[in-house]
Amino acid sequence: MPAFPVPDPESLFEAARQGDRAALARLLSLAERGGPPSRAVAALAYTAPGDAYTVGITGAPGAGKSTLTDRLITLGRRTGVTGADGADGADGAGGPVAVLAVDPSSPYSGGAILGDRVRMSGHTTDSDVYIRSMATRGHLGGLSVAVPDAVRVLSAVGFPVVLVETVGVGQQEVEVAAATDTTVVVVNPGWGDAIQANKAGLLEIADLFVINKADRPGARETRRDLELMLELTELGEWRPPIVETVASTGDGVESLWAAIVEHRAHQLDRGTLVEHRRRRLEREFGEILVARVRQRIESLQRDGRHVDVVGPLLEGRLDPYEAADRLLAALGMEPGDGAGAGS
Amino acid sequence: MPAFPVPDPESLFEAARQGDRAALARLLSLAERGGPPSRAVAALAYTAPGDAYTVGITGAPGAGKSTLTDRLITLGRRTGVTGADGADGADGAGGPVAVLAVDPSSPYSGGAILGDRVRMSGHTTDSDVYIRSMATRGHLGGLSVAVPDAVRVLSAVGFPVVLVETVGVGQQEVEVAAATDTTVVVVNPGWGDAIQANKAGLLEIADLFVINKADRPGARETRRDLELMLELTELGEWRPPIVETVASTGDGVESLWAAIVEHRAHQLDRGTLVEHRRRRLEREFGEILVARVRQRIESLQRDGRHVDVVGPLLEGRLDPYEAADRLLAALGMEPGDGAGAGS
Repeated sequence: MPAFPVPDPESLFEAARQGDRAALARLLSLAERGGPPSRAVAALAYTAPGDAYTVGITGAPGAGKSTLTDRLITLGRRTGVTGADGADGADGAGGPVAVLAVDPSSPYSGGAILGDRVRMSGHTTDSDVYIRSMATRGHLGGLSVAVPDAVRVLSAVGFPVVLVETVGVGQQEVEVAAATDTTVVVVNPGWGDAIQANKAGLLEIADLFVINKADRPGARETRRDLELMLELTELGEWRPPIVETVASTGDGVESLWAAIVEHRAHQLDRGTLVEHRRRRLEREFGEILVARVRQRIESLQRDGRHVDVVGPLLEGRLDPYEAADRLLAALGMEPGDGAGAGS
Repeated sequence: MPAFPVPDPESLFEAARQGDRAALARLLSLAERGGPPSRAVAALAYTAPGDAYTVGITGAPGAGKSTLTDRLITLGRRTGVTGADGADGADGAGGPVAVLAVDPSSPYSGGAILGDRVRMSGHTTDSDVYIRSMATRGHLGGLSVAVPDAVRVLSAVGFPVVLVETVGVGQQEVEVAAATDTTVVVVNPGWGDAIQANKAGLLEIADLFVINKADRPGARETRRDLELMLELTELGEWRPPIVETVASTGDGVESLWAAIVEHRAHQLDRGTLVEHRRRRLEREFGEILVARVRQRIESLQRDGRHVDVVGPLLEGRLDPYEAADRLLAALGMEPGDGAGAGS
């Protein structure tokens, strides 16, 4: 219920490209709200994609992700993701930096806290730093679709670097963290922290490990645990480095940024960056497909147009799997195809 | 790769119903692993559903869910969910109790910790308490399908009460917590804890609130916050009560159990229990449908049978939403139907 007419997505894009932050904020609100306007925004961003490099920062609540992200903003502003200092090494030579703080469902970290940190550290006076927290409840396809849409908008309006901070808890949240060019997994010193990260599915998505709060006891043991687990994992050509940081003082964060820059260069050298992005796009496409089918099924359920299946289901005469196969057959899909492949 | 032949699901069910815990564990492993055996187990459980009453316990990491669950086991064993003491009020008059500790992706709480607590409090010597932690990565449909499947197995083998403990962080995890007959949301005293729970989507799923660690400062403020938020919410006939507990000492947990018993009685009185279960089953059915479609699409992608859509998508000539609509049309579904309905 807007109190004034909302400009069309085209005009908003044009304005956002010229640096209009209010227009950008509106675009992102449209994108995260879902529905037809969201689709129009996504389509526009898709046809003029830009070339942002995306860095995911994830880990358990309290691991220090926000403080670390704050430090990375400074480094991104200084050198950019190519790692090349400006001629005079001045702040800002790296170009603008955008941050998506994704945490719609967790009470921890997320936009508010990061916002506070950033306010403290003075980034808000820097108009080339744009920070946005994501609230995506209600978006068709959830986080897995809403976050790539928002990243694409930020890329399309000209940000060369987008940092995506997520809490590494919950199935979708971990997937979102993994859907970036470089994924940084943050752990802390302490008994079993690396093992917990493994349990949470974070080890398999990491391009880089950070042991943050490395001035606390147990950093060496955590490094050993991570190295052991890497030994036990089948790695590709890239072996995830382990960087120690103390985000609160800034110790080690330059090494972390250097490792990000190196990971990017490695992917460009081997041509794997294009391949990874390609696979991510296919996965995202799959999510959108599934979301669309879900919409379709919900509309059928609302209309009561498959009572023949739901009735027997509710009466206990059909199990839900059998009911699903029958409904899909009614929708015109052969459920047998591939359904027996397991997994 | 079993080292010995695995009995068929029918025999396992028969044995599990006779109290064979090893057979039950195997059934649950089959159920959570996904694939055709999982389906066979689900179908068997569905046709002989039993009559378990399910209680969800959810909240932020560290809220004290496991300690609280441990206390609820004791009360469930003593009086059952009907609240009727045994003739002599002896422990065990309430019948057996099963617990699912769902936390596949979080480093917090979950099976191991609950297991420890339970071991301490001596429940492991009680063969009528069955505790299982869920690891569902890889299950088709994820937690939203795997947990109802597991609950149905526990119900089918004769547990009258199933407690489902989940961390209230992450989209799917919150949905799982909501998919129980009575959903208990645990918060702690402290500034903003209720507001954080609201942000996490926990307020709208709560049938009961627990302020645990209520001996700490701020319990009164947290209660006031919860009451205020309830005022602002459109409630049905049931107004979620707020119970204060100190799970570590046991204070208040009998009131909590009484509130659970009361919520169950309320639902039976109004006939809403059947209606709620019906809606949950429809939702679950929707999840299974979507998971099936996902399988089908993945098999198409593996076969490269929709290159006509993915090619243009990867070349930037089609946006993913447009590509999805075209592929669905190719699958025989009219994507226009209901797709414009937004949300």
